[in-house]
Amino acid sequence: MKSNDTATTVGKINPDVLAFTEGKDPVLDLALAVSDCIGTAAHVTMLSKMDYQPTLFTEEQRIQVIRALRDIIEEARRGEFTITAADQDVHLAVERRLTERLGDLGKKVHTCRSRNDQVAVDIRLHIREELNAMQIELAELAKALLKVAKVHKNIPLVGRTHLQPAMPSSVGMWASGYAEMLLDDVYLLEAAAKTNNLCPLGSAAGYGVPLPIDRALTAKLLAFDRPHHNVFYASCARGKDEAVLLSACTQVMLSLSRLAEDLILFSMPEFRYFTLPRELCTGSSIMPQKYNPDVLELIRAKAGLVQGYATAANTILKAMPGGYNRDLQDTKELYMEGLRVTRTSLRIMTLMANQLQVNSDMCRAAFAEPGVFATDRALELVASGMPFRDAYHQVRDHLEDLRGMDPDVVIAQKTHLGGTAGLDFDYLDARANEVQENARVAQARVDAAITELLDIE
Amino acid sequence: MKSNDTATTVGKINPDVLAFTEGKDPVLDLALAVSDCIGTAAHVTMLSKMDYQPTLFTEEQRIQVIRALRDIIEEARRGEFTITAADQDVHLAVERRLTERLGDLGKKVHTCRSRNDQVAVDIRLHIREELNAMQIELAELAKALLKVAKVHKNIPLVGRTHLQPAMPSSVGMWASGYAEMLLDDVYLLEAAAKTNNLCPLGSAAGYGVPLPIDRALTAKLLAFDRPHHNVFYASCARGKDEAVLLSACTQVMLSLSRLAEDLILFSMPEFRYFTLPRELCTGSSIMPQKYNPDVLELIRAKAGLVQGYATAANTILKAMPGGYNRDLQDTKELYMEGLRVTRTSLRIMTLMANQLQVNSDMCRAAFAEPGVFATDRALELVASGMPFRDAYHQVRDHLEDLRGMDPDVVIAQKTHLGGTAGLDFDYLDARANEVQENARVAQARVDAAITELLDIE
Amino acid sequence: MKSNDTATTVGKINPDVLAFTEGKDPVLDLALAVSDCIGTAAHVTMLSKMDYQPTLFTEEQRIQVIRALRDIIEEARRGEFTITAADQDVHLAVERRLTERLGDLGKKVHTCRSRNDQVAVDIRLHIREELNAMQIELAELAKALLKVAKVHKNIPLVGRTHLQPAMPSSVGMWASGYAEMLLDDVYLLEAAAKTNNLCPLGSAAGYGVPLPIDRALTAKLLAFDRPHHNVFYASCARGKDEAVLLSACTQVMLSLSRLAEDLILFSMPEFRYFTLPRELCTGSSIMPQKYNPDVLELIRAKAGLVQGYATAANTILKAMPGGYNRDLQDTKELYMEGLRVTRTSLRIMTLMANQLQVNSDMCRAAFAEPGVFATDRALELVASGMPFRDAYHQVRDHLEDLRGMDPDVVIAQKTHLGGTAGLDFDYLDARANEVQENARVAQARVDAAITELLDIE
Amino acid sequence: MKSNDTATTVGKINPDVLAFTEGKDPVLDLALAVSDCIGTAAHVTMLSKMDYQPTLFTEEQRIQVIRALRDIIEEARRGEFTITAADQDVHLAVERRLTERLGDLGKKVHTCRSRNDQVAVDIRLHIREELNAMQIELAELAKALLKVAKVHKNIPLVGRTHLQPAMPSSVGMWASGYAEMLLDDVYLLEAAAKTNNLCPLGSAAGYGVPLPIDRALTAKLLAFDRPHHNVFYASCARGKDEAVLLSACTQVMLSLSRLAEDLILFSMPEFRYFTLPRELCTGSSIMPQKYNPDVLELIRAKAGLVQGYATAANTILKAMPGGYNRDLQDTKELYMEGLRVTRTSLRIMTLMANQLQVNSDMCRAAFAEPGVFATDRALELVASGMPFRDAYHQVRDHLEDLRGMDPDVVIAQKTHLGGTAGLDFDYLDARANEVQENARVAQARVDAAITELLDIE
Repeated sequence: MKSNDTATTVGKINPDVLAFTEGKDPVLDLALAVSDCIGTAAHVTMLSKMDYQPTLFTEEQRIQVIRALRDIIEEARRGEFTITAADQDVHLAVERRLTERLGDLGKKVHTCRSRNDQVAVDIRLHIREELNAMQIELAELAKALLKVAKVHKNIPLVGRTHLQPAMPSSVGMWASGYAEMLLDDVYLLEAAAKTNNLCPLGSAAGYGVPLPIDRALTAKLLAFDRPHHNVFYASCARGKDEAVLLSACTQVMLSLSRLAEDLILFSMPEFRYFTLPRELCTGSSIMPQKYNPDVLELIRAKAGLVQGYATAANTILKAMPGGYNRDLQDTKELYMEGLRVTRTSLRIMTLMANQLQVNSDMCRAAFAEPGVFATDRALELVASGMPFRDAYHQVRDHLEDLRGMDPDVVIAQKTHLGGTAGLDFDYLDARANEVQENARVAQARVDAAITELLDIE
Repeated sequence: MKSNDTATTVGKINPDVLAFTEGKDPVLDLALAVSDCIGTAAHVTMLSKMDYQPTLFTEEQRIQVIRALRDIIEEARRGEFTITAADQDVHLAVERRLTERLGDLGKKVHTCRSRNDQVAVDIRLHIREELNAMQIELAELAKALLKVAKVHKNIPLVGRTHLQPAMPSSVGMWASGYAEMLLDDVYLLEAAAKTNNLCPLGSAAGYGVPLPIDRALTAKLLAFDRPHHNVFYASCARGKDEAVLLSACTQVMLSLSRLAEDLILFSMPEFRYFTLPRELCTGSSIMPQKYNPDVLELIRAKAGLVQGYATAANTILKAMPGGYNRDLQDTKELYMEGLRVTRTSLRIMTLMANQLQVNSDMCRAAFAEPGVFATDRALELVASGMPFRDAYHQVRDHLEDLRGMDPDVVIAQKTHLGGTAGLDFDYLDARANEVQENARVAQARVDAAITELLDIE
Repeated sequence: MKSNDTATTVGKINPDVLAFTEGKDPVLDLALAVSDCIGTAAHVTMLSKMDYQPTLFTEEQRIQVIRALRDIIEEARRGEFTITAADQDVHLAVERRLTERLGDLGKKVHTCRSRNDQVAVDIRLHIREELNAMQIELAELAKALLKVAKVHKNIPLVGRTHLQPAMPSSVGMWASGYAEMLLDDVYLLEAAAKTNNLCPLGSAAGYGVPLPIDRALTAKLLAFDRPHHNVFYASCARGKDEAVLLSACTQVMLSLSRLAEDLILFSMPEFRYFTLPRELCTGSSIMPQKYNPDVLELIRAKAGLVQGYATAANTILKAMPGGYNRDLQDTKELYMEGLRVTRTSLRIMTLMANQLQVNSDMCRAAFAEPGVFATDRALELVASGMPFRDAYHQVRDHLEDLRGMDPDVVIAQKTHLGGTAGLDFDYLDARANEVQENARVAQARVDAAITELLDIE
Repeated sequence: MKSNDTATTVGKINPDVLAFTEGKDPVLDLALAVSDCIGTAAHVTMLSKMDYQPTLFTEEQRIQVIRALRDIIEEARRGEFTITAADQDVHLAVERRLTERLGDLGKKVHTCRSRNDQVAVDIRLHIREELNAMQIELAELAKALLKVAKVHKNIPLVGRTHLQPAMPSSVGMWASGYAEMLLDDVYLLEAAAKTNNLCPLGSAAGYGVPLPIDRALTAKLLAFDRPHHNVFYASCARGKDEAVLLSACTQVMLSLSRLAEDLILFSMPEFRYFTLPRELCTGSSIMPQKYNPDVLELIRAKAGLVQGYATAANTILKAMPGGYNRDLQDTKELYMEGLRVTRTSLRIMTLMANQLQVNSDMCRAAFAEPGVFATDRALELVASGMPFRDAYHQVRDHLEDLRGMDPDVVIAQKTHLGGTAGLDFDYLDARANEVQENARVAQARVDAAITELLDIE
């Protein structure tokens, strides 16, 4: 069991049950090895600073432990850290390595701690780093889309409602529109980061410990915004953290799926507004002209995957009683996959945007039918004082008069904010840069804190 | 159709199709009547301020329209506003009322606008008010729980992991833990509010208008944080708004479902730590002692409902192509029901918390078995310098020595932050007040803006 | 409360709580009025046949009750049955009407019954009728699609993979493919019908009654396949019934959403393989050529809705403890909306299929590019003995030789089962007829049983 | 790309894209190795029987290929089959092995086939075997529960509604109720099996081949019920197969989650109706009496997982256009995990049921409060002719008279079908046996067909 007991009576357990309860931990937990060492370093440092008699951890012991943890961290970063079947999970694997090296001192790191708060802090350290990276990647994609928008700012594009041609739009509007959509998703990533950046350490099995540990200190050492206040809540918050993260990832993936859908549609030979970069498509050895948008189809599908993961996490949480329940083990793979899929999709879509070819001739050719100009023309008549009904009748009855209208002229007329001629790329660029800068500052603050924590010279 | 055309050729449409496309709009849209009038007032005011020749709207016309809108708003607030079958939706119903009173001027309010940006702004005005109210209600529940925590701060409660008795906790820790959980959900509500508080007006059918409208002004008149920049994105953002809101409501409902589950379990006669307020339970005419926690069961179920609504909204958005698509009509009932269910559940749970009876004798009686003290005892031994293994063996082998330990003493020992003796109610009270204050200030700012907008004296 | 007590102490309950627990029952339950009367008729008939002293129900009493129930049924069929606020639900509304007419005899119908098994049987009677109707409607759509397939059997259509042109297909293959997809969904509807067609009556509050009631008889009177055996399970089965139904409806809606997507895409002006019937589209008063596929977009969205309802029902069931829990009330609206949406969508899509216009010139014009013939050509070469690599190279290097190939010839070559020239419409017609016949026979059996049950002459 | 082309221009593709499109196939596809060989054997056999000139496959060639496939199958069964990075997937890995051994003949197995119909048939062969095994395991659990029911048939158990004590039940009713619930889930598994047991072979890339292949023969060789008729539909049916399977697994898991919840609750020390087998629980080295129901908590959580997988699969399918789309790749892991999790959970729960200890003293002790007898007593009075109101008043006002009533007597009175004294275990045993027999017969039929197919002596 993974709660408040340090040892389990493994020997007597049915091996099928052992395998069932262990699940994929030995594999998944590899992603948590560095975090586990850092969490332990903070905990031990806090113990060594405690004004408590008898001394729980001497400064010398702290240095010994941190030196060993640094070695394990390096090992993990080299990909050499392993979790054996006997270990079961990362916590016992780290403990084993510590004990091999430090003897009983290796076990002492568990004083005033439980695997419950240990895994909870590991996950939060892991998510924090991933979320910072994801925000940088998301903004990178937004910038790539903004570059498409700037380069092709005034290429007219048939704007659609109900997928039917409706009014003139532009590649600039289309591409920067998706950039703005993604940048607004950052609100949710920021909420996920706030929810995540709280420190559960010291909650132990969910009911604290009978010693005056300094939870504010561990939170500070690890650069968390603050500790979870209530330790009972700290243990209940584990699944919520993952569920909130997956909700945010779902929204990002839904945005990507919509962009992917537009790219799939409008790179079809019947439209060819866009040509997808050949090296990002799979081809056919027999149909040289055929380039399949596999990666876009997969991104579309992965929006479904991540929404499924979020649904699973939410369903697990529904009506779960207070305190640690083993159900929470099953949110681990969900959040890890959700992060991996979302980040990979953002990067692949950035490759796509960076090399997207816009075919201005095909974009313009799509304006052959006059109907797409009708609404704009009627709005002009109305603006000139003609009553609605008259304007509409006049436009409808003389639709052919609109044939040959120049879409370039029409899109140049929409000068209001966010119109085809009123796009403020500076504004969106600034927001993209701000998102990246915020994430970089946040990560730098984290890195500095960890460097200091592990600094034993 | 609901996009960029002002009139539809309704007459020729198959009546089954008409009913299918109309859906529940005539009923659902009643909730949007006031918002629709306010959105129209802002649009007309902006038109009247435009530096454009010929003048689109004179000041005199603006005053006439706003006077008429004020009357419709009052009508709606009295519950007397109706949407007829012929109207189809709130926009045409308001237009009909305006036209009945103002003639052609009533139709002129549609200049430079489409039903697309009209409904989008209506929904955002509606959600904004609801979200402010929800935050106040959520904080009210948090405060009610904090009151339970304060009054019963030191009543010991068996803390559980895996639902098994594990370590001593307290009613103070339990109740304030759920308060903190709910207050952390506010991060998501705030993200939903940020996502929502953007103004789509002026996007028309998603591709803007060929006149130099002042979108920043309408956004300001309506007290939005800013306009959506890109008008194509503004039209794509409609479903996202609702999906993000439903994700946030889902997390709130999941928190409520967990609190409900604890209350259902621990008010069972086998525990009776809590007695539910009788007037909130349904009873039995034959079993006078039987009080059923129906409302808690329903709150538990409603977490499932709201997660279902969120799943539906997300699935609707998945791979939806750019520009308005009629699919978006079907997110309307989802978000309205999500708001209604969440707010009602918060209020019902507040009633429950306000009258919850804590049975201290039953809470204490649950400590008869000594095992629940074992972990704390072992942690003490370890802290005193005894090696883990020895401490655990000693405790296990002398478990009976723990019988009769006083839970009051144990919970008084956990003085660290967020422990049973380290609960900082001031901190959580302050956060609850802050949430309410923020929501009230936000709503006051909205109310002031709308008052000014409608002020024609 | 809705379980094993006949009266509730309503007077003392907080009115907000009353409204919360009542929910939408007074409206939703109207759909159950006829079923409630029929269920009561069966129960009373069974009681009157019981070999038990003292006699629970005399034959005369049975006749009186059934006469009154018949009147209520007629009232309900005329749309005049009402459920008042005081009634709360359909069961108390029917009881009220019975008591108004029959005095104490009206209350006696509750002997050996509870509202729990009453509502459970009502729902099953309701679902049974709806499922039969849905199967007939689904097969009707399949037949409409098969008619499209037959009429346009040999019109070539560009077959796609990854939405890219891939190989020659035909309208016959496309339309009959969707017919077959829908007919395979019937397996799930049949499973839902089997799950549904079990009788819970006699389970009372989930633990039976202390009298020797004849549950097999009520099941037979109501034409159920059999009673649920275990009465505890009968009460647990309520939510499962709805969840299984919603899973089946989700699959039907997903099929419809895929058909809708193809129709939306291929009726775009850039393809115009299909022209949607004008009376089923919404149009534009200004763009006469613009016909929006609103109903198809709504069907696409409604697949999301129904999947959301299924998710909600499943989430409600997850980890629900045994025996009746009030959570189950909230599956009622879900299943009713799921049925309504699915059936309406089937009927609307049938209208669409019945009037779909296929533009054979546009379908043929799409074969201008030679690549779409490449795979077929290579397969021919391979079949003639040429090694793969050589065949592919030869085709690729002489792709232009394929230009001008006749798609009619190519689709005439695929004579194998289910190929463009091997479509066996008789087989699919027969299956569609079988589905309808099965549903009609099933419903006729039900109708006959109910007629007999209510026959008191 | 995975559709209708035999070779891909892999060399030029961006390595990140290659990794993204490949996904987890090299690992997941190992589960399909045997199926892939069997599908190929059937295809080649069919080709060799074709009455077509030039001969596509000679008998000698068929024997050579099947001999090689048999070796690969054995290799796979020994766990020695590998898929290299260069292979990408199981199809190319099998082809590579065939070609290493048979030269060009190894490539010839692809005549008239595509990776699309190849993977579709592999998945269906895999699911078929798994579904048969799952039905046997499910029935095994039902039988284990029935054994619990028989052994403890007359041990009274407090029956609950709203989790409150309501009426007398029995362990026999409780355990056999869950057995019946699971056995009813078989309807859905059967529907999934019917949906699955159709043969897509010969659909190639979804549009058939220009040669007169015998699709009915391959279907027969592989013991499918029939081929998918329409080959376009055959390619669209891939995702539906997995989605239907996951819906069925979700219902099974929901049933298990409810059983798990009851076991978690009623093995708590406050109830101790049940004691979980110690070797299936994780313990605590310090609290010897503490046995944590981890496996039950994990089963509860896994109901959430599988529902999430089903939601993901459904969302992927929603509005997917006709023909193969790469999105379908992402349903593979979902269905494999869904099968694995469901089957493992069934087996673990069977272990639990087989060793469950029922504590009859604790079960009986729970009847100390008289209220649990009230409803039965009132029903008796009503049956004896007393009007409801009087009966209820009398019971309520003399509740104490019921104290000391013997639950054994009460449960012996409910002799009607499915009541505590009317449980027909034979009926449920017979159904469990029937489910197992059906699955065994189905699997034996499959095994015989495959043996014959691979028999080249």
